[in-house]
Amino acid sequence: MPLILISNDDGITAKGIQSLIESMRPLGSVIVVAPDSPRSAQSSALTVTTPLRVKKIHEEEGLVQYICNGTPSDCVKLALNQLCPRKPDIVVAGINHGTNSSISVIYSGTIGATIEGCVNGIPSIGFSLCNFDPRADFSTAMIYAQRITKKIVQEGLPKGICLNVNIPDLKTIKGIKICRQSEGYWSEEFIKREDPYGKHYYWLTGEFINAEKLNDDTDEWALENGYISIVPVKVDMTAYEYINDLKKLDYEQE
Amino acid sequence: MPLILISNDDGITAKGIQSLIESMRPLGSVIVVAPDSPRSAQSSALTVTTPLRVKKIHEEEGLVQYICNGTPSDCVKLALNQLCPRKPDIVVAGINHGTNSSISVIYSGTIGATIEGCVNGIPSIGFSLCNFDPRADFSTAMIYAQRITKKIVQEGLPKGICLNVNIPDLKTIKGIKICRQSEGYWSEEFIKREDPYGKHYYWLTGEFINAEKLNDDTDEWALENGYISIVPVKVDMTAYEYINDLKKLDYEQE
Repeated sequence: MPLILISNDDGITAKGIQSLIESMRPLGSVIVVAPDSPRSAQSSALTVTTPLRVKKIHEEEGLVQYICNGTPSDCVKLALNQLCPRKPDIVVAGINHGTNSSISVIYSGTIGATIEGCVNGIPSIGFSLCNFDPRADFSTAMIYAQRITKKIVQEGLPKGICLNVNIPDLKTIKGIKICRQSEGYWSEEFIKREDPYGKHYYWLTGEFINAEKLNDDTDEWALENGYISIVPVKVDMTAYEYINDLKKLDYEQE
Repeated sequence: MPLILISNDDGITAKGIQSLIESMRPLGSVIVVAPDSPRSAQSSALTVTTPLRVKKIHEEEGLVQYICNGTPSDCVKLALNQLCPRKPDIVVAGINHGTNSSISVIYSGTIGATIEGCVNGIPSIGFSLCNFDPRADFSTAMIYAQRITKKIVQEGLPKGICLNVNIPDLKTIKGIKICRQSEGYWSEEFIKREDPYGKHYYWLTGEFINAEKLNDDTDEWALENGYISIVPVKVDMTAYEYINDLKKLDYEQE
Protein backbone atom coordinates (compact mmCIF):
# COMPACT_ATOMS: atom_id res chain seq x y z
CA MET A 1 0.00 0.00 0.00
CA PRO A 2 1.50 3.36 -0.97
CA LEU A 3 1.83 5.94 1.82
CA ILE A 4 0.41 9.26 0.64
CA LEU A 5 1.21 12.53 2.43
CA ILE A 6 -1.31 15.32 1.88
CA SER A 7 -0.99 19.01 2.70
CA ASN A 8 -2.36 22.29 1.36
CA ASP A 9 -2.34 26.03 1.92
CA ASP A 10 -6.05 26.74 2.35
CA GLY A 11 -6.02 24.94 5.70
CA ILE A 12 -7.61 21.76 6.99
CA THR A 13 -11.19 23.00 6.79
CA ALA A 14 -11.04 23.75 3.05
CA LYS A 15 -13.25 21.77 0.75
CA GLY A 16 -10.26 21.32 -1.58
CA ILE A 17 -8.18 19.28 0.86
CA GLN A 18 -11.18 17.23 1.97
CA SER A 19 -11.81 16.43 -1.71
CA LEU A 20 -8.17 15.48 -2.19
CA ILE A 21 -8.26 13.17 0.85
CA GLU A 22 -11.36 11.48 -0.52
CA SER A 23 -9.79 10.98 -3.95
CA MET A 24 -6.51 9.63 -2.50
CA ARG A 25 -7.92 7.08 -0.05
CA PRO A 26 -8.54 4.38 -2.68
CA LEU A 27 -4.86 4.66 -3.70
CA GLY A 28 -3.20 3.97 -0.36
CA SER A 29 -2.75 4.88 3.27
CA VAL A 30 -3.20 8.61 3.80
CA ILE A 31 -1.51 10.94 6.27
CA VAL A 32 -2.64 14.56 6.32
CA VAL A 33 -0.58 17.37 7.86
CA ALA A 34 -2.23 20.66 7.01
CA PRO A 35 -2.23 24.23 8.31
CA ASP A 36 -4.84 24.95 10.98
CA SER A 37 -5.87 28.11 9.11
CA PRO A 38 -5.54 29.51 5.58
CA ARG A 39 -1.94 30.08 4.51
CA SER A 40 -2.35 31.20 0.92
CA ALA A 41 0.55 32.87 -0.89
CA GLN A 42 3.04 31.53 1.66
CA SER A 43 5.41 30.28 -1.02
CA SER A 44 8.13 28.13 0.62
CA ALA A 45 8.08 30.24 3.80
CA LEU A 46 9.23 28.56 7.01
CA THR A 47 8.38 29.45 10.60
CA VAL A 48 11.53 30.33 12.51
CA THR A 49 10.49 32.92 15.09
CA THR A 50 7.66 31.04 16.82
CA PRO A 51 7.46 27.39 17.88
CA LEU A 52 5.39 24.97 15.86
CA ARG A 53 2.46 23.11 17.40
CA VAL A 54 0.93 19.94 16.01
CA LYS A 55 -2.32 18.21 16.92
CA LYS A 56 -3.73 14.89 15.78
CA ILE A 57 -7.38 15.51 14.97
CA HIS A 58 -8.48 12.26 13.36
CA GLU A 59 -7.39 8.64 13.12
CA GLU A 60 -8.97 5.65 11.48
CA GLU A 61 -7.77 2.69 9.39
CA GLY A 62 -5.85 4.15 6.44
CA LEU A 63 -6.23 7.82 7.43
CA VAL A 64 -4.50 10.02 10.02
CA GLN A 65 -4.97 13.79 10.12
CA TYR A 66 -2.85 16.40 11.88
CA ILE A 67 -3.13 20.17 11.99
CA CYS A 68 -0.18 22.50 12.47
CA ASN A 69 0.15 26.22 13.13
CA GLY A 70 2.86 26.58 10.49
CA THR A 71 3.13 27.16 6.77
CA PRO A 72 2.57 24.47 4.12
CA SER A 73 6.34 23.88 3.94
CA ASP A 74 6.51 23.57 7.75
CA CYS A 75 3.71 20.98 7.56
CA VAL A 76 5.57 18.83 5.06
CA LYS A 77 8.88 19.16 6.91
CA LEU A 78 7.22 18.20 10.21
CA ALA A 79 5.40 15.33 8.57
CA LEU A 80 8.55 13.86 7.07
CA ASN A 81 10.69 14.46 10.13
CA GLN A 82 8.32 13.66 12.99
CA LEU A 83 4.92 12.32 11.98
CA CYS A 84 5.14 9.86 9.09
CA PRO A 85 5.69 6.21 10.04
CA ARG A 86 8.02 5.91 7.02
CA LYS A 87 9.04 7.97 4.00
CA PRO A 88 5.88 8.59 1.97
CA ASP A 89 5.67 7.27 -1.58
CA ILE A 90 4.14 10.50 -2.78
CA VAL A 91 3.33 14.00 -1.53
CA VAL A 92 0.20 15.67 -2.90
CA ALA A 93 -0.88 19.22 -2.10
CA GLY A 94 -4.21 20.95 -2.62
CA ILE A 95 -6.61 20.82 -4.17
CA ASN A 96 -6.05 24.57 -4.09
CA HIS A 97 -9.00 26.93 -4.31
CA GLY A 98 -7.72 29.00 -7.24
CA THR A 99 -5.25 28.80 -10.11
CA ASN A 100 -1.52 28.38 -9.52
CA SER A 101 -0.34 28.67 -13.10
CA SER A 102 2.35 30.91 -14.59
CA ILE A 103 4.18 33.14 -12.08
CA SER A 104 1.91 31.99 -9.23
CA VAL A 105 4.26 29.02 -8.88
CA ILE A 106 6.60 31.46 -7.11
CA TYR A 107 4.05 32.57 -4.49
CA SER A 108 1.82 29.55 -3.97
CA GLY A 109 1.84 27.71 -0.65
CA THR A 110 0.42 24.69 -2.47
CA ILE A 111 3.52 24.63 -4.60
CA GLY A 112 5.64 25.36 -1.50
CA ALA A 113 4.38 22.11 0.03
CA THR A 114 4.97 20.31 -3.28
CA ILE A 115 8.53 21.61 -3.57
CA GLU A 116 9.20 20.52 0.01
CA GLY A 117 8.28 16.94 -0.85
CA CYS A 118 10.49 17.15 -3.94
CA VAL A 119 13.48 18.56 -2.04
CA ASN A 120 13.19 15.52 0.22
CA GLY A 121 13.39 13.14 -2.72
CA ILE A 122 9.70 12.19 -2.88
CA PRO A 123 7.58 12.40 -6.06
CA SER A 124 5.32 15.39 -5.38
CA ILE A 125 2.32 16.97 -7.09
CA GLY A 126 0.46 20.20 -6.42
CA PHE A 127 -3.17 20.34 -7.58
CA SER A 128 -5.14 23.55 -8.09
CA LEU A 129 -8.66 24.18 -9.35
CA CYS A 130 -9.30 27.38 -11.33
CA ASN A 131 -12.01 28.54 -8.94
CA PHE A 132 -11.40 30.55 -5.77
CA ASP A 133 -14.85 29.91 -4.32
CA PRO A 134 -14.81 28.08 -0.95
CA ARG A 135 -17.79 26.05 -2.25
CA ALA A 136 -16.23 25.26 -5.63
CA ASP A 137 -17.16 21.96 -7.26
CA PHE A 138 -14.14 19.64 -7.03
CA SER A 139 -15.80 16.54 -8.50
CA THR A 140 -14.01 16.63 -11.87
CA ALA A 141 -10.73 17.74 -10.29
CA MET A 142 -10.89 14.76 -7.91
CA ILE A 143 -11.11 12.29 -10.78
CA TYR A 144 -8.06 13.73 -12.49
CA ALA A 145 -6.09 14.18 -9.26
CA GLN A 146 -6.59 10.50 -8.56
CA ARG A 147 -5.67 9.45 -12.09
CA ILE A 148 -2.51 11.59 -12.25
CA THR A 149 -1.37 10.60 -8.75
CA LYS A 150 -1.87 6.90 -9.53
CA LYS A 151 0.31 7.27 -12.62
CA ILE A 152 3.08 9.10 -10.77
CA VAL A 153 3.06 6.58 -7.90
CA GLN A 154 3.70 3.94 -10.59
CA GLU A 155 6.18 5.87 -12.73
CA GLY A 156 7.96 8.11 -10.22
CA LEU A 157 9.50 11.46 -11.06
CA PRO A 158 13.13 12.43 -11.68
CA LYS A 159 15.10 13.81 -8.73
CA GLY A 160 14.51 17.55 -8.20
CA ILE A 161 11.38 17.73 -10.36
CA CYS A 162 7.77 17.96 -9.13
CA LEU A 163 4.47 18.64 -10.91
CA ASN A 164 2.27 21.71 -10.89
CA VAL A 165 -1.20 20.58 -12.03
CA ASN A 166 -3.95 23.13 -12.72
CA ILE A 167 -7.47 22.05 -13.50
CA PRO A 168 -10.00 24.26 -15.29
CA ASP A 169 -13.33 24.80 -13.56
CA LEU A 170 -15.31 22.82 -16.12
CA LYS A 171 -17.60 19.81 -16.02
CA THR A 172 -15.97 18.44 -19.16
CA ILE A 173 -12.21 18.60 -19.57
CA LYS A 174 -10.73 18.40 -23.07
CA GLY A 175 -7.69 16.49 -21.85
CA ILE A 176 -4.27 16.95 -20.28
CA LYS A 177 -1.49 19.15 -21.71
CA ILE A 178 2.13 19.03 -20.57
CA CYS A 179 3.17 22.69 -20.55
CA ARG A 180 5.78 25.21 -19.65
CA GLN A 181 5.19 28.02 -17.14
CA SER A 182 3.70 30.98 -19.01
CA GLU A 183 5.33 34.38 -18.69
CA GLY A 184 3.09 36.68 -16.75
CA TYR A 185 2.82 39.15 -13.90
CA TRP A 186 0.30 40.92 -11.70
CA SER A 187 -0.56 44.55 -12.43
CA GLU A 188 -2.00 47.34 -10.23
CA GLU A 189 -1.48 45.40 -7.11
CA PHE A 190 -2.55 47.59 -4.20
CA ILE A 191 -5.70 49.22 -2.91
CA LYS A 192 -4.93 52.11 -0.54
CA ARG A 193 -7.47 52.85 2.21
CA GLU A 194 -7.74 55.06 5.26
CA ASP A 195 -8.54 53.50 8.63
CA PRO A 196 -10.98 55.13 11.12
CA TYR A 197 -7.97 56.86 12.73
CA GLY A 198 -6.81 58.57 9.54
CA LYS A 199 -3.91 56.21 8.80
CA HIS A 200 -3.33 54.51 5.48
CA TYR A 201 -3.19 50.81 4.86
CA TYR A 202 -2.84 48.69 1.76
CA TRP A 203 -4.44 45.54 0.44
CA LEU A 204 -2.67 43.46 -2.13
CA THR A 205 -4.89 42.92 -5.16
CA GLY A 206 -4.50 43.18 -8.90
CA GLU A 207 -5.04 41.51 -12.20
CA PHE A 208 -2.98 38.73 -13.74
CA ILE A 209 -1.50 39.61 -17.10
CA ASN A 210 -0.58 36.70 -19.36
CA ALA A 211 2.40 38.04 -21.27
CA GLU A 212 2.20 35.45 -24.03
CA LYS A 213 -1.42 34.94 -25.02
CA LEU A 214 -0.73 33.22 -28.31
CA ASN A 215 1.74 30.51 -27.31
CA ASP A 216 -0.03 27.17 -27.13
CA ASP A 217 2.70 25.41 -25.14
CA THR A 218 2.02 27.37 -21.94
CA ASP A 219 -0.06 26.47 -18.90
CA GLU A 220 -2.18 29.59 -19.36
CA TRP A 221 -3.09 28.56 -22.91
CA ALA A 222 -4.07 25.06 -21.81
CA LEU A 223 -6.34 26.36 -19.05
CA GLU A 224 -7.97 28.99 -21.24
CA ASN A 225 -8.69 26.31 -23.81
CA GLY A 226 -10.28 23.74 -21.52
CA TYR A 227 -7.27 21.50 -20.79
CA ILE A 228 -5.61 20.50 -17.55
CA SER A 229 -2.07 21.90 -17.47
CA ILE A 230 0.84 19.94 -16.01
CA VAL A 231 4.09 21.86 -15.66
CA PRO A 232 7.15 19.95 -14.44
CA VAL A 233 8.82 22.27 -11.89
CA LYS A 234 12.52 22.22 -10.96
CA VAL A 235 13.97 23.10 -7.57
CA ASP A 236 17.25 23.94 -9.26
CA MET A 237 16.60 27.56 -10.24
CA THR A 238 19.98 28.06 -11.95
CA ALA A 239 19.77 29.89 -15.29
CA TYR A 240 22.30 27.60 -16.97
CA GLU A 241 21.89 29.34 -20.31
CA TYR A 242 23.26 32.56 -18.84
CA ILE A 243 26.31 31.21 -16.96
CA ASN A 244 28.75 31.69 -19.82
CA ASP A 245 27.69 35.28 -20.52
CA LEU A 246 27.94 36.10 -16.83
CA LYS A 247 31.48 34.71 -16.72
CA LYS A 248 32.53 37.28 -19.35
CA LEU A 249 31.72 40.27 -17.12
CA ASP A 250 34.83 41.69 -15.48
CA TYR A 251 33.83 42.76 -11.97
CA GLU A 252 37.28 44.13 -11.16
CA GLN A 253 37.08 46.64 -14.02
CA GLU A 254 35.46 50.03 -13.50
CA MET B 1 21.67 58.96 -11.50
CA PRO B 2 20.48 55.37 -11.17
CA LEU B 3 17.57 54.76 -8.81
CA ILE B 4 18.40 51.86 -6.48
CA LEU B 5 15.69 50.03 -4.52
CA ILE B 6 16.92 48.20 -1.41
CA SER B 7 15.12 45.64 0.70
CA ASN B 8 16.06 42.68 2.90
CA ASP B 9 14.62 40.01 5.16
CA ASP B 10 16.46 40.69 8.41
CA GLY B 11 14.52 43.94 8.82
CA ILE B 12 15.47 47.61 8.81
CA THR B 13 17.58 47.48 11.98
CA ALA B 14 19.96 44.80 10.68
CA LYS B 15 23.59 45.74 10.21
CA GLY B 16 23.47 44.00 6.81
CA ILE B 17 20.95 46.39 5.24
CA GLN B 18 22.62 49.42 6.76
CA SER B 19 25.89 48.22 5.21
CA LEU B 20 24.19 47.73 1.85
CA ILE B 21 22.69 51.24 1.98
CA GLU B 22 26.12 52.69 2.71
CA SER B 23 27.71 50.80 -0.17
CA MET B 24 24.96 51.74 -2.66
CA ARG B 25 24.80 55.49 -1.96
CA PRO B 26 27.83 56.37 -4.11
CA LEU B 27 26.15 54.60 -7.06
CA GLY B 28 22.87 56.50 -7.19
CA SER B 29 19.72 57.63 -5.47
CA VAL B 30 18.61 55.09 -2.88
CA ILE B 31 15.09 54.13 -1.78
CA VAL B 32 14.79 51.58 1.02
CA VAL B 33 11.58 49.64 1.73
CA ALA B 34 12.34 47.01 4.35
CA PRO B 35 10.43 44.89 6.85
CA ASP B 36 9.96 46.49 10.27
CA SER B 37 11.11 43.24 11.93
CA PRO B 38 13.04 40.11 10.93
CA ARG B 39 11.38 38.10 8.17
CA SER B 40 13.92 35.37 7.53
CA ALA B 41 12.93 32.27 5.57
CA GLN B 42 9.88 34.04 4.14
CA SER B 43 10.62 32.92 0.60
CA SER B 44 8.30 34.77 -1.82
CA ALA B 45 5.46 34.84 0.73
CA LEU B 46 2.88 37.62 0.37
CA THR B 47 0.60 39.09 3.00
CA VAL B 48 -3.03 38.59 2.02
CA THR B 49 -4.95 38.21 5.28
CA THR B 50 -3.88 41.43 7.05
CA PRO B 51 -3.52 44.95 5.67
CA LEU B 52 -0.07 46.34 4.99
CA ARG B 53 1.19 49.45 6.76
CA VAL B 54 4.04 51.62 5.54
CA LYS B 55 5.93 54.38 7.34
CA LYS B 56 8.57 56.77 6.05
CA ILE B 57 11.31 56.83 8.68
CA HIS B 58 14.06 58.85 7.02
CA GLU B 59 14.53 61.28 4.14
CA GLU B 60 17.54 63.20 2.96
CA GLU B 61 19.08 64.07 -0.41
CA GLY B 62 19.61 60.77 -2.27
CA LEU B 63 18.12 58.51 0.43
CA VAL B 64 14.55 57.72 1.49
CA GLN B 65 13.73 54.90 3.92
CA TYR B 66 10.40 53.21 4.57
CA ILE B 67 9.46 50.36 6.86
CA CYS B 68 6.60 47.97 6.21
CA ASN B 69 4.87 45.28 8.27
CA GLY B 70 4.97 42.82 5.36
CA THR B 71 7.33 40.26 3.90
CA PRO B 72 10.33 41.10 1.71
CA SER B 73 8.21 40.44 -1.41
CA ASP B 74 5.46 42.71 -0.07
CA CYS B 75 8.09 45.44 0.48
CA VAL B 76 9.30 45.27 -3.11
CA LYS B 77 5.75 45.11 -4.53
CA LEU B 78 4.69 48.12 -2.44
CA ALA B 79 7.85 50.01 -3.37
CA LEU B 80 7.33 49.49 -7.09
CA ASN B 81 3.59 50.09 -7.00
CA GLN B 82 3.26 52.94 -4.49
CA LEU B 83 6.51 54.38 -3.21
CA CYS B 84 9.14 54.70 -5.94
CA PRO B 85 9.11 57.98 -7.91
CA ARG B 86 9.89 55.92 -11.05
CA LYS B 87 10.85 52.35 -11.98
CA PRO B 88 14.16 51.63 -10.23
CA ASP B 89 17.21 50.80 -12.33
CA ILE B 90 18.15 48.01 -9.99
CA VAL B 91 16.80 46.13 -6.96
CA VAL B 92 19.32 44.92 -4.37
CA ALA B 93 18.45 42.84 -1.32
CA GLY B 94 20.47 42.09 1.80
CA ILE B 95 23.15 41.99 2.80
CA ASN B 96 21.71 38.91 4.46
CA HIS B 97 23.10 37.71 7.77
CA GLY B 98 23.80 34.13 6.71
CA THR B 99 24.38 32.07 3.59
CA ASN B 100 21.70 31.69 0.91
CA SER B 101 23.44 29.20 -1.32
CA SER B 102 22.17 25.88 -2.69
CA ILE B 103 18.60 24.98 -1.72
CA SER B 104 18.30 28.06 0.53
CA VAL B 105 17.38 29.97 -2.63
CA ILE B 106 13.93 28.36 -2.23
CA TYR B 107 13.36 29.60 1.34
CA SER B 108 15.24 32.88 1.53
CA GLY B 109 13.35 36.14 1.95
CA THR B 110 16.39 37.94 0.55
CA ILE B 111 15.97 35.97 -2.65
CA GLY B 112 12.19 36.50 -2.44
CA ALA B 113 12.78 40.26 -2.64
CA THR B 114 15.27 39.72 -5.46
CA ILE B 115 12.87 37.56 -7.45
CA GLU B 116 10.16 40.19 -6.99
CA GLY B 117 12.34 42.81 -8.63
CA CYS B 118 13.11 40.36 -11.43
CA VAL B 119 9.45 39.46 -12.01
CA ASN B 120 8.85 43.18 -12.49
CA GLY B 121 11.50 43.42 -15.19
CA ILE B 122 14.21 45.09 -13.11
CA PRO B 123 17.80 43.77 -12.83
CA SER B 124 17.93 42.39 -9.28
CA ILE B 125 20.63 41.03 -7.00
CA GLY B 126 20.45 39.33 -3.61
CA PHE B 127 23.56 39.58 -1.41
CA SER B 128 24.29 37.29 1.53
CA LEU B 129 27.26 37.06 3.88
CA CYS B 130 28.22 33.62 5.21
CA ASN B 131 27.91 34.74 8.83
CA PHE B 132 24.67 34.72 10.84
CA ASP B 133 25.99 36.97 13.62
CA PRO B 134 24.04 40.23 14.04
CA ARG B 135 27.42 41.95 14.53
CA ALA B 136 29.10 40.30 11.51
CA ASP B 137 31.78 42.30 9.69
CA PHE B 138 30.32 43.44 6.36
CA SER B 139 33.28 45.55 5.23
CA THR B 140 34.56 43.15 2.54
CA ALA B 141 31.03 42.23 1.45
CA MET B 142 30.23 45.94 0.97
CA ILE B 143 33.12 46.41 -1.45
CA TYR B 144 32.01 43.48 -3.60
CA ALA B 145 28.31 44.34 -3.39
CA GLN B 146 29.14 47.78 -4.72
CA ARG B 147 31.37 46.46 -7.48
CA ILE B 148 28.90 43.81 -8.66
CA THR B 149 25.93 46.18 -8.52
CA LYS B 150 27.82 48.84 -10.49
CA LYS B 151 28.56 46.27 -13.19
CA ILE B 152 24.97 45.06 -13.40
CA VAL B 153 23.61 48.63 -13.53
CA GLN B 154 25.86 49.11 -16.59
CA GLU B 155 25.28 45.73 -18.23
CA GLY B 156 21.72 44.81 -17.22
CA LEU B 157 20.44 41.26 -16.88
CA PRO B 158 18.29 39.17 -19.23
CA LYS B 159 14.54 39.15 -18.63
CA GLY B 160 13.52 36.64 -15.96
CA ILE B 161 17.02 36.17 -14.53
CA CYS B 162 18.36 37.63 -11.27
CA LEU B 163 21.55 37.03 -9.29
CA ASN B 164 22.10 35.21 -6.00
CA VAL B 165 25.43 36.43 -4.61
CA ASN B 166 26.97 34.79 -1.55
CA ILE B 167 30.09 36.18 0.07
CA PRO B 168 32.37 34.13 2.32
CA ASP B 169 33.10 35.56 5.77
CA LEU B 170 36.75 36.30 5.03
CA LYS B 171 38.93 39.38 5.07
CA THR B 172 40.55 38.32 1.80
CA ILE B 173 38.42 36.92 -1.00
CA LYS B 174 40.06 34.77 -3.69
CA GLY B 175 37.77 36.11 -6.39
CA ILE B 176 34.33 35.67 -7.93
CA LYS B 177 32.99 32.38 -9.36
CA ILE B 178 29.90 32.11 -11.54
CA CYS B 179 28.21 28.94 -10.31
CA ARG B 180 25.21 26.72 -10.44
CA GLN B 181 23.01 26.00 -7.41
CA SER B 182 24.50 23.04 -5.52
CA GLU B 183 22.30 20.09 -4.72
CA GLY B 184 21.68 19.92 -1.01
CA TYR B 185 19.12 19.60 1.74
CA TRP B 186 18.66 20.10 5.47
CA SER B 187 18.73 17.06 7.74
CA GLU B 188 17.35 16.44 11.26
CA GLU B 189 15.30 19.53 11.17
CA PHE B 190 13.26 19.67 14.39
CA ILE B 191 13.87 19.95 18.10
CA LYS B 192 10.89 18.74 20.12
CA ARG B 193 10.33 20.33 23.53
CA GLU B 194 7.70 20.32 26.24
CA ASP B 195 6.21 23.60 27.41
CA PRO B 196 5.52 24.32 31.13
CA TYR B 197 1.97 23.01 30.60
CA GLY B 198 3.07 19.60 29.31
CA LYS B 199 2.37 20.27 25.63
CA HIS B 200 4.87 19.66 22.89
CA TYR B 201 6.24 22.21 20.49
CA TYR B 202 8.85 22.11 17.76
CA TRP B 203 11.67 24.35 16.62
CA LEU B 204 12.96 24.11 13.10
CA THR B 205 16.70 23.52 13.10
CA GLY B 206 19.08 21.17 11.35
CA GLU B 207 22.26 20.84 9.42
CA PHE B 208 22.82 21.64 5.76
CA ILE B 209 24.05 18.69 3.72
CA ASN B 210 25.89 19.51 0.52
CA ALA B 211 25.00 16.58 -1.72
CA GLU B 212 27.84 17.18 -4.19
CA LYS B 213 30.98 18.06 -2.28
CA LEU B 214 33.39 17.43 -5.12
CA ASN B 215 31.84 19.44 -7.94
CA ASP B 216 33.76 22.68 -8.41
CA ASP B 217 31.07 24.42 -10.48
CA THR B 218 28.65 24.78 -7.53
CA ASP B 219 28.05 27.72 -5.21
CA GLU B 220 28.88 25.57 -2.18
CA TRP B 221 32.28 24.70 -3.61
CA ALA B 222 33.08 28.34 -4.34
CA LEU B 223 32.17 29.44 -0.81
CA GLU B 224 34.07 26.60 0.87
CA ASN B 225 37.12 27.52 -1.17
CA GLY B 226 37.19 31.24 -0.45
CA TYR B 227 35.36 32.58 -3.51
CA ILE B 228 32.24 34.69 -3.86
CA SER B 229 29.54 32.66 -5.63
CA ILE B 230 27.20 34.21 -8.15
CA VAL B 231 24.33 32.00 -9.31
CA PRO B 232 22.03 33.34 -12.03
CA VAL B 233 18.50 32.44 -10.87
CA LYS B 234 15.48 31.96 -13.18
CA VAL B 235 11.87 32.72 -12.29
CA ASP B 236 10.78 30.22 -14.92
CA MET B 237 10.91 27.01 -12.90
CA THR B 238 9.85 24.76 -15.80
CA ALA B 239 11.89 21.55 -16.09
CA TYR B 240 12.11 21.76 -19.89
CA GLU B 241 14.32 18.67 -20.07
CA TYR B 242 11.47 16.54 -18.69
CA ILE B 243 8.57 17.81 -20.81
CA ASN B 244 8.94 15.20 -23.54
CA ASP B 245 9.14 12.26 -21.13
CA LEU B 246 6.11 13.55 -19.28
CA LYS B 247 4.15 13.73 -22.54
CA LYS B 248 4.67 10.00 -23.02
CA LEU B 249 2.76 9.03 -19.87
CA ASP B 250 -0.79 7.96 -20.61
CA TYR B 251 -2.97 9.28 -17.81
CA GLU B 252 -6.12 7.70 -19.22
CA GLN B 253 -4.63 4.22 -18.94
CA GLU B 254 -4.94 2.24 -15.70
